[in-house]
Amino acid sequence: MEVQVSQQWEQFQQLVRKIMSYYEALGVLHWDLRTGAPRKGTDIRSETIGILSTEAFKLQVSEEMGQFLQFFADPKHEGQLDERQRRMVAEIRKLYEQNKSIPPERFKEYSILASQSETKWEEAKKNSDFAGFEPYLTKIVAFKQEFIDYWGVKSTRYDTLLDMYEPDLTVEKVDAIFDRLKARLVPLVHAVSESSFKPETGFLKQLFDIGQQDKFSRFLLGQMGYDFEAGRLDESVHPFATGLNPGDVRITTHYLQDDVLSAVFSSLHEGGHALYEQNIDKSLAGTPLSSGASMGIHESQSRLWENMIGRSRPFWRRYFGDLQQHFPEQLKDVSLEDFYLAVNKVENSLIRIEADELTYNLHIIIRYEIEKQLFNEGLSVKELPEVWNSKYKEYLGIMPPNDGLGVLQDVHWSGGDFGYFASYSLGNMYAAQMLHTLRKEMPNLDELIEQGNLAPIKEWLTEKVYRFGKTETPSEIILRVTGEELNPDYLADYLEAKYKEIYKL
Amino acid sequence: MEVQVSQQWEQFQQLVRKIMSYYEALGVLHWDLRTGAPRKGTDIRSETIGILSTEAFKLQVSEEMGQFLQFFADPKHEGQLDERQRRMVAEIRKLYEQNKSIPPERFKEYSILASQSETKWEEAKKNSDFAGFEPYLTKIVAFKQEFIDYWGVKSTRYDTLLDMYEPDLTVEKVDAIFDRLKARLVPLVHAVSESSFKPETGFLKQLFDIGQQDKFSRFLLGQMGYDFEAGRLDESVHPFATGLNPGDVRITTHYLQDDVLSAVFSSLHEGGHALYEQNIDKSLAGTPLSSGASMGIHESQSRLWENMIGRSRPFWRRYFGDLQQHFPEQLKDVSLEDFYLAVNKVENSLIRIEADELTYNLHIIIRYEIEKQLFNEGLSVKELPEVWNSKYKEYLGIMPPNDGLGVLQDVHWSGGDFGYFASYSLGNMYAAQMLHTLRKEMPNLDELIEQGNLAPIKEWLTEKVYRFGKTETPSEIILRVTGEELNPDYLADYLEAKYKEIYKL
Repeated sequence: MEVQVSQQWEQFQQLVRKIMSYYEALGVLHWDLRTGAPRKGTDIRSETIGILSTEAFKLQVSEEMGQFLQFFADPKHEGQLDERQRRMVAEIRKLYEQNKSIPPERFKEYSILASQSETKWEEAKKNSDFAGFEPYLTKIVAFKQEFIDYWGVKSTRYDTLLDMYEPDLTVEKVDAIFDRLKARLVPLVHAVSESSFKPETGFLKQLFDIGQQDKFSRFLLGQMGYDFEAGRLDESVHPFATGLNPGDVRITTHYLQDDVLSAVFSSLHEGGHALYEQNIDKSLAGTPLSSGASMGIHESQSRLWENMIGRSRPFWRRYFGDLQQHFPEQLKDVSLEDFYLAVNKVENSLIRIEADELTYNLHIIIRYEIEKQLFNEGLSVKELPEVWNSKYKEYLGIMPPNDGLGVLQDVHWSGGDFGYFASYSLGNMYAAQMLHTLRKEMPNLDELIEQGNLAPIKEWLTEKVYRFGKTETPSEIILRVTGEELNPDYLADYLEAKYKEIYKL
Repeated sequence: MEVQVSQQWEQFQQLVRKIMSYYEALGVLHWDLRTGAPRKGTDIRSETIGILSTEAFKLQVSEEMGQFLQFFADPKHEGQLDERQRRMVAEIRKLYEQNKSIPPERFKEYSILASQSETKWEEAKKNSDFAGFEPYLTKIVAFKQEFIDYWGVKSTRYDTLLDMYEPDLTVEKVDAIFDRLKARLVPLVHAVSESSFKPETGFLKQLFDIGQQDKFSRFLLGQMGYDFEAGRLDESVHPFATGLNPGDVRITTHYLQDDVLSAVFSSLHEGGHALYEQNIDKSLAGTPLSSGASMGIHESQSRLWENMIGRSRPFWRRYFGDLQQHFPEQLKDVSLEDFYLAVNKVENSLIRIEADELTYNLHIIIRYEIEKQLFNEGLSVKELPEVWNSKYKEYLGIMPPNDGLGVLQDVHWSGGDFGYFASYSLGNMYAAQMLHTLRKEMPNLDELIEQGNLAPIKEWLTEKVYRFGKTETPSEIILRVTGEELNPDYLADYLEAKYKEIYKL
């Protein structure tokens, strides 16, 4: 590398490192707000988050940054970068171009609003008070519409949002994939609900000590290979994982005294996200490539651990005894098989994050369709509860008794994350397709799980997915790992095989 | 106010608010590091803290800031500011002038070092490994010596450091005050240790459940008027209080299973600091005046609650029953009087933060003398353990068995806080002098305490001290509140009266 190029690279890296520092601090401020920051400090905290987000934003679209990007756009200079360096420049350039047209003042107002709005959402959800939350959400949507204009409208306005979470994803593609999936899942869901077999779940309706739940979550996370010296587990209203830096990837869960499964599976889920970020190649630290490849790929890792491993027979053959030891009183008379059937019970229910693997995708399709209406078809925020409720009635045959259990259940919209939900179903599809390959390459997979020997799985995923971070696109990853482009049939195959066996269809 | 002046003021305030945002974020990052951030993330976190501290520092000494200060230095403009606004400008100007001569790169290196050094100190203390900590401390001292040159040497090099924690404090003044105090305390300490009376403390040497300790700390904090909706209580190696914003003033304590008093009194202590910051006038929020007037005044508030109220007979007349209820097994046969005598036992001991009220000042004098040697008389860091141990032998007649219980016991030096310790004894003196006035103005003080009616005390302190924040200097405060300048005799009077009675002298 020529001296001039290496000097420019050095300075560029320093600027990027500085920007990453803001994001680490903002990550901690957010984590703190969600895990127990005192109520009376949240207004000033929101303002502080807004101010620092704006500073980070300004650096990202600064003249200095523009000059670096221009310098590295020159083929003479770019030619001296290695592949990773080029990816890093491309990633930064994408953010730069996305954001440089947003006036910093507008961005600041938006950041403050989004932060306040998340706090208001928590209250509104608790009190089922959509009216109290509506003014905030209306402003958030208006901001997003304004930002879409800044970012540039793709085929449709909503396409612009989809692309931000999953590069190159379009309404056209999602419509096609969801149609193909629906064609196989709808008859399956129908057959399951017609089945005379109903798993017994009465034994889950007991009180389970929260201290014991916490111990069991920590135990399972340890078994997965989650490194507690590079992370911590806390509690929040809505469970999440956050990678603050490569040595500090935190997760939260939510303990319900009358629902022992909720924390178990949300810990496995967030643990899957965290395992990904804890095992990204350390040489990417301090760059934006030290994160998941996309929301969809990230979600594939949480789903793989939560559902495909965590709700499998071999998994509970190994761990049900441990669970019984944590709750001898409640579970002593429950058989392994009954427990397995219970954790896989299919039920048309109200809450997405508590939904079973099979109907889960319907929860996503509802949200996807509503967001499409909101951004492409003139639906107003005021109408959301009504549309939400009628879609739940239509797709799942049930009606939320209040907005806390309905339209207010998810955190995403309060933070402006529209276009995100589709990634969850993509995640299921990526996961099923990867599992298919994993099973081919590791024919004794079920035996390993049954032995509680989960390390080889973590190693395989590290080798194939985790370590790459964001140095590859989702399409590149799925093709490299499985030899094929995304194919929703793997998910349909997996779900059919599993639920036909369980429901004796 | 003229339009031009009010516009300048508005922009100046925005810049100050931005700087305060960095300090709030840095406060959270520090709090997080000390209360459970994962070990493997601390190196990157230290770097992040260094980078963001540098950004805040750059803003403080920026050209923009210089221009505002110049603008408000003009009597035509300054004349249009009210008293508070003038104080704020003066406070910012002081920081500006202190720091503008430090090259930002040096400041950044120092910030990273100080953050790493605190983490190393924790390990070193645990392992009694001074050699492992020495290289860090040596660099910290070298940086401080370099900074003293940037700041300007006052009468002596160490004077420059003293002044940073307590405005206008000098080696000459401290020497005089400490001499006057020593003249009365040394004979008292001597008489106490000669006394044949020894309080019974055997009942304290039991195991006390940490969950119960936590409950009792929270109970006492609630009684003091600590607002848990504007703060939270956590655990850390070294207890501290940190005001992140006026609605978020956090404290930590440290639970020892075999020492129930440690957490009780550190909670009262940090609670005193927090009460101060929670009750600063809200109109000062977002400015540097929204903090304690000085380290000494801050410490007077923690000492007042911890010792003068918290170790008084009326206090335990009210609360000993509650403590017994938390630990019925351990305390059922202990009388109130025996407990009172035990919490006031005077003992020449090794650990400052566990020391009794009376010998405490000797711990401070040792540190003050060592720091003076380090900065004024060429003492090297390598020699610290030896000097430390010999001073403990000389003043307290005891010798630390290892450096963890000796020179490594305090966090301060690891973070570069030299010149800080003297404030603790000043705090005792301010507190005793304020208590004297409080007792005159509230003749039924003891009755109120005995009724657990602590609100009027908090209100008096809010009215006289808390609400003013940093709008007055320590000298102005002590003069306004007590009608007199700082006078160490009040502390000596208080200690003599209390300990002569206890030790029947």
